[in-house]
Amino acid sequence: MVPRYARPQMTALWEAEAKYRIWFEIEAHATEKLGELGVVPESAAKALWAWWETNPKVDVEAIDAIEAVTKHDVIAFLTWVAENVGDEARFMHQGMTSSDVLDTTLAVQLARSADLLLEDIDLLLAAIKRRAEEHKYTPTIGRSHGIHAEPVTFGLKMAEAYAEFSRCRARLVAARDDIATCAISGAVGTFANIDPSVEEHVAERLGLTPEPVSTQVIPRDRHAMFFATLGVIASSIERLSVEVRHLQRTEVLEAEEYFSPGQKGSSAMPHKRNPVLTENLTGLARMVRSYALPAMENVALWHERDISHSSVERFIGPDACITLDFALGRLTGVIDKLLVYPERMQKNMDRMGGLVHSQRVLLALTQNGVSREDAYRLVQRNAMKVWESDGALSLLELLKADAEVTAALSDEELEKRFDLEYHFKQVDTIFNRVFGAN
Amino acid sequence: MVPRYARPQMTALWEAEAKYRIWFEIEAHATEKLGELGVVPESAAKALWAWWETNPKVDVEAIDAIEAVTKHDVIAFLTWVAENVGDEARFMHQGMTSSDVLDTTLAVQLARSADLLLEDIDLLLAAIKRRAEEHKYTPTIGRSHGIHAEPVTFGLKMAEAYAEFSRCRARLVAARDDIATCAISGAVGTFANIDPSVEEHVAERLGLTPEPVSTQVIPRDRHAMFFATLGVIASSIERLSVEVRHLQRTEVLEAEEYFSPGQKGSSAMPHKRNPVLTENLTGLARMVRSYALPAMENVALWHERDISHSSVERFIGPDACITLDFALGRLTGVIDKLLVYPERMQKNMDRMGGLVHSQRVLLALTQNGVSREDAYRLVQRNAMKVWESDGALSLLELLKADAEVTAALSDEELEKRFDLEYHFKQVDTIFNRVFGAN
Amino acid sequence: MVPRYARPQMTALWEAEAKYRIWFEIEAHATEKLGELGVVPESAAKALWAWWETNPKVDVEAIDAIEAVTKHDVIAFLTWVAENVGDEARFMHQGMTSSDVLDTTLAVQLARSADLLLEDIDLLLAAIKRRAEEHKYTPTIGRSHGIHAEPVTFGLKMAEAYAEFSRCRARLVAARDDIATCAISGAVGTFANIDPSVEEHVAERLGLTPEPVSTQVIPRDRHAMFFATLGVIASSIERLSVEVRHLQRTEVLEAEEYFSPGQKGSSAMPHKRNPVLTENLTGLARMVRSYALPAMENVALWHERDISHSSVERFIGPDACITLDFALGRLTGVIDKLLVYPERMQKNMDRMGGLVHSQRVLLALTQNGVSREDAYRLVQRNAMKVWESDGALSLLELLKADAEVTAALSDEELEKRFDLEYHFKQVDTIFNRVFGAN
Amino acid sequence: MVPRYARPQMTALWEAEAKYRIWFEIEAHATEKLGELGVVPESAAKALWAWWETNPKVDVEAIDAIEAVTKHDVIAFLTWVAENVGDEARFMHQGMTSSDVLDTTLAVQLARSADLLLEDIDLLLAAIKRRAEEHKYTPTIGRSHGIHAEPVTFGLKMAEAYAEFSRCRARLVAARDDIATCAISGAVGTFANIDPSVEEHVAERLGLTPEPVSTQVIPRDRHAMFFATLGVIASSIERLSVEVRHLQRTEVLEAEEYFSPGQKGSSAMPHKRNPVLTENLTGLARMVRSYALPAMENVALWHERDISHSSVERFIGPDACITLDFALGRLTGVIDKLLVYPERMQKNMDRMGGLVHSQRVLLALTQNGVSREDAYRLVQRNAMKVWESDGALSLLELLKADAEVTAALSDEELEKRFDLEYHFKQVDTIFNRVFGAN
Repeated sequence: MVPRYARPQMTALWEAEAKYRIWFEIEAHATEKLGELGVVPESAAKALWAWWETNPKVDVEAIDAIEAVTKHDVIAFLTWVAENVGDEARFMHQGMTSSDVLDTTLAVQLARSADLLLEDIDLLLAAIKRRAEEHKYTPTIGRSHGIHAEPVTFGLKMAEAYAEFSRCRARLVAARDDIATCAISGAVGTFANIDPSVEEHVAERLGLTPEPVSTQVIPRDRHAMFFATLGVIASSIERLSVEVRHLQRTEVLEAEEYFSPGQKGSSAMPHKRNPVLTENLTGLARMVRSYALPAMENVALWHERDISHSSVERFIGPDACITLDFALGRLTGVIDKLLVYPERMQKNMDRMGGLVHSQRVLLALTQNGVSREDAYRLVQRNAMKVWESDGALSLLELLKADAEVTAALSDEELEKRFDLEYHFKQVDTIFNRVFGAN
Repeated sequence: MVPRYARPQMTALWEAEAKYRIWFEIEAHATEKLGELGVVPESAAKALWAWWETNPKVDVEAIDAIEAVTKHDVIAFLTWVAENVGDEARFMHQGMTSSDVLDTTLAVQLARSADLLLEDIDLLLAAIKRRAEEHKYTPTIGRSHGIHAEPVTFGLKMAEAYAEFSRCRARLVAARDDIATCAISGAVGTFANIDPSVEEHVAERLGLTPEPVSTQVIPRDRHAMFFATLGVIASSIERLSVEVRHLQRTEVLEAEEYFSPGQKGSSAMPHKRNPVLTENLTGLARMVRSYALPAMENVALWHERDISHSSVERFIGPDACITLDFALGRLTGVIDKLLVYPERMQKNMDRMGGLVHSQRVLLALTQNGVSREDAYRLVQRNAMKVWESDGALSLLELLKADAEVTAALSDEELEKRFDLEYHFKQVDTIFNRVFGAN
Repeated sequence: MVPRYARPQMTALWEAEAKYRIWFEIEAHATEKLGELGVVPESAAKALWAWWETNPKVDVEAIDAIEAVTKHDVIAFLTWVAENVGDEARFMHQGMTSSDVLDTTLAVQLARSADLLLEDIDLLLAAIKRRAEEHKYTPTIGRSHGIHAEPVTFGLKMAEAYAEFSRCRARLVAARDDIATCAISGAVGTFANIDPSVEEHVAERLGLTPEPVSTQVIPRDRHAMFFATLGVIASSIERLSVEVRHLQRTEVLEAEEYFSPGQKGSSAMPHKRNPVLTENLTGLARMVRSYALPAMENVALWHERDISHSSVERFIGPDACITLDFALGRLTGVIDKLLVYPERMQKNMDRMGGLVHSQRVLLALTQNGVSREDAYRLVQRNAMKVWESDGALSLLELLKADAEVTAALSDEELEKRFDLEYHFKQVDTIFNRVFGAN
Repeated sequence: MVPRYARPQMTALWEAEAKYRIWFEIEAHATEKLGELGVVPESAAKALWAWWETNPKVDVEAIDAIEAVTKHDVIAFLTWVAENVGDEARFMHQGMTSSDVLDTTLAVQLARSADLLLEDIDLLLAAIKRRAEEHKYTPTIGRSHGIHAEPVTFGLKMAEAYAEFSRCRARLVAARDDIATCAISGAVGTFANIDPSVEEHVAERLGLTPEPVSTQVIPRDRHAMFFATLGVIASSIERLSVEVRHLQRTEVLEAEEYFSPGQKGSSAMPHKRNPVLTENLTGLARMVRSYALPAMENVALWHERDISHSSVERFIGPDACITLDFALGRLTGVIDKLLVYPERMQKNMDRMGGLVHSQRVLLALTQNGVSREDAYRLVQRNAMKVWESDGALSLLELLKADAEVTAALSDEELEKRFDLEYHFKQVDTIFNRVFGAN
């Protein structure tokens, strides 16, 4: 976790105190059910909850000190609770194994992280939607291969991002479901020393589903899917970030990250206004998606379990969630405050001498009986002249002067093919598909 | 694609001929709808379908030869079709762009691949289920960290695999839905020169859903999610393969890959019977999951599209699907024919002098009033003696001779804790969770 | 391996026939030495070489047919050789194990592939150097964050690429050394049944070094390092490709991939000239670097060896080498024929109203006694006006009109800071560093 | 960075204070040279060094507070230094750009980290060597595919690890050289405002080499190579760790991680002694190698530079170095204190009824005139009986009873092939290769 790429709410979820709080809840809920079943005295859970209601400070240092001796984190924690609660605490953890606590805790942390990330995505979607509506009909050139292609609108670019992050949202909901399971099944997962109803009880209290079959650990294919999903979301963040970076290039400058007063773009060059937020997001995306592979390597634990997954998860559990949370928040800010320059968009589009309309002329020629091959040749030979003139020549004028072209299309018919609005007639259809009908 | 790791049905889906067949269908369905809309003559689609009904050979070499000149694959294909169908073919591809054909084709190939992979998983699940039921109550030692823990059954191991591949199945269904979209939206995706109803028509005919907003290309987050999902499935294949490899180790030998008559395990050592199939699957899993990252890097195409994704997909499209198909098939064979040795399982379990029952004694001590810490100490000091004797000593006998232990537990109470069946009392519950109630 | 991204010479190295030829050589060289040692008759090697000198066709199908029965590739090959050579062939492979042949063969293939790749890099370096010298003093704007920074020359861009690929070359030489080892050490690598001098003999004949200690297999850290190195080289290919893609953007257009007559950029838009080669290289780079991870996962084989690495290497051995060879060749072609537009470079540089000189003014102010903070503020406030005017205003004129500025710098002093040549005074120094002194 | 996987010396290198100390040194060394060149007063560097000699506390909070306003880290640092040193400090950073400081600092941090890692590897090599010599002739079974193959010695296993980490050491030396460069070349790297001799001076003082051509940043192929190399080293750590984990399995138990008094292997099962250190190392290896890919993605910065690499390096710079340092230290401890059980090794070897000698019989048969195919068949048919008896039958006895075998080999000749020492006759040769001749 890199503090500068972390926000407090998500970070808190991954701190020691939050972890120990979940540990306590799992142990106390389990003891409660064990009391109901008559395995331990009902007084045990009562003592635990009574102490908990005093809102005791979770003394992380004290627990760490015990762990330094026992070299076992859960035993250290149980010892610390026993020191505080007293004799009744000895009934805790009956028939359970450490993994019951650890894995269920990780499930809670990941599920709560997913909830925050879903909120993040909702805020991002709202920002994107607002900008989409604002620029629904703002013309801008569509580019394939970085080369001018045909006109689109800036709103369409936003609609695409909206659709993409809506898909990311749905994937995250699925990944959250995948990860939100509870295992309280004892050593090697046989429930030999603990009744399955304890698991069901704890699951219900914590908003999880019981793991159908665990092997001391919750199977790691669930986590692999979770982190892979975060990697895909990060890649979508990269895509929108790269779009902004491209739009802000000096020669393009159709949009720009907000530049706050007092901000210095460069210590050496006072004139600079750089897309540093989206460049940063590009890097963060690389990190988040890199976590997918160690998560996948974690799946093949030996037999019922080994502990090799644990160190990996100590890194990627917090790092993936915290970094993605930060990145979504930063991207939302970028989109929300993005400076959009419609005049520059128009200016860029105009610089190509009308080349962006070449396809419509091609179609018109074929519709008027010219073979596709001939039509392509006729348009291309004029287009190349415009291209080589760097937009100084006009495609329309050249076509009007080409006898082979005018044999098939009148000047008026040609002019009709250079109408910008023509390209936007389905924008509303697309918006309805993406944002729903009005 | 490595031929030895490929099966014909899946491979055929990715061959040039299959691709061109899908191209034709897309073009013909689109022309059909364009005819209905009056954009092209209705005779065009009729001519195309009439020719198609003659079941013409798709002449891959001829198309390649044209491409060598045009340097454009779709134009080469259209030219070849025109050479065959004649004049009416010039109405094909009206208002479309190459990506409409290429991306929709990839969607069809991936969706059909997913269908085959789903069938593969179903066969694997069936094999696992059969072995699970066969060995529902076959005792075997559960191992954590490679060390004996407590008893499980071989059926439980199979149940876990069944649950895991059931999750994989559900994820693949979701990934298939994600990928199975159709884009016929023209240059930069504005539908400027083609009505959205054409897309809807082609989608419906090919069993796809229309892409809500495309940008000439279908957005690559869909593909990233698809390949990431295959990577997770591959990781689950690795897990079950590693389990078999461990079970087949000389010292363990609780199960073994089927060894066919005439097979030679080693050119140098005639006595060898190696788990080569599951080792091979371990390697194949590494490959399939490695494809997730380039797929994620493909997401951030520049602006409306660039072509950098294409070369990546020429590798991983076929390679991921073909290799995973092969791996699932191979794993199904391994499980189906796996030689299982219950006697050896029992023998291995017995070699630890009863250590596997240590937890039950621990619990019994605490239930009879010994503090958890004392109980742990009492059991551990006897367990370590057994451990150091390499199973020559018996934990039960040592405990009976430990005065601090017998102060809390009678011989009879101790013996009760060494009952193997005790561990299996929830096996049926778990089976019901995994396979459904009988 | 994707045929369209493969060149014949490299591909041939990885075909079955080439592999079997190396197998034969290893076996024959080893038999030769075994003859010298008196382990087998000297006639054996003579018989083998005598047959080999007849230049026999390597009958891949025949060998495959035998393997279908034996399920063991090396035994199948030995059987086939025996069928051809006759009785003397039974002395082949004495004391050896399959891995001796397979791993040494892979070393030969990788070493020969590295040799081809080194030739590729040399050709690329030559092309880059030629363009560097051609454009040593061609002014172009340097860009940080995609934003105009200060002037550089196009030759400097090429010099950087030259230095980078020179480093790649050195790394590949090291990786080749790492991989080029020979293991003929028998089962589990103890030389129990074969004298170490056989290994030394075969190594010397094949241009390899003997593996100091093998464990039946050559240790896979060597291969991991090799493929990781190819991944780094691929990433450098991506860097130069991305540079070209950026330079070819419509609004930038400072350079362009060569566009051959008759080429069609788009089936729909006849005006397009797209940087498809470098986009393609971007994708290929993603693939080649993705192979680093499975190669690293291959390192941790179980005990003396398992076979999980094998399937991975059947993919990435040929795919990494063939794809990188193709990519280096393609990049060389791109650089060699790159269309470079110096006028456009100048035009782009001029469009910023002199902002690119802001740092020099900043330095002049501080040198004349203005505090750094004040100097920054003074330059920035004028620079922002130019920025917002989209280059219509001139920084020099604005500075001349700013009383706080002119209090420290005269008009003449200001003008001196707008001299382009100033930036190029160390170009020769850098060229000497990169290409060596003239 | 996960604190529990971090050691203080390496961690300190990556803390803010260490970074700022390097920043100061770079600036002061550069100012010194600029003074010599007459660009700034010589008094400037003197003032800086005079203050530095007072050993001032680097006030990280104060610098952070300034950065919160300027949003630029280097400017914040320079401002803080100026507040402390006074007026002379304004001459710092003349003609430099932030990246000159940042990139050279990263080079220093990585080079110093590499130095620590090299020390770590030396300690590991020493531990391995000691155990190798201790167990040079301790017989143990060599295993391929997890299956008994032929005898090796435990010393050979250690020799292999020694050779592997020696290679890792050499690779790290090369990677250190690759990364240890200094760039003080100003905006876009042209030295327009700073003389190359400043770079040479700073490089010499910091033990770096000057970067031949930088583009404001040091090219990231260097870093990619560095992190890829760490990934390979991590993979070698995984290999040795997996070996220990396998040896510690209950059924194998030929070696064991040291188990300290008072340690608890499991909260639920008091009998457990788990290889938790090497399992942990397996996970850490997954993390370290995962960093190779984002490092490779960092190479293709846009034009002269973008800032996307920075966030990646804030993670992987410290995380890769700190984690690998910890892992090397932990592995050294594991090897140093590893409990090795030669009796158990012998016992395991004996359990296969002599199957491990099958190859020698095969060779003896062929040497006495039996065809390879027949010899294989004869040995295999007896070996399979032993195999199926689970080692109860003796291969030697069965062979003596097989008339086809005894037709070629006498009892005495057979017995000679079951000599364990035979396998170790080249151990000394291998040790000389690995550790050098005595």
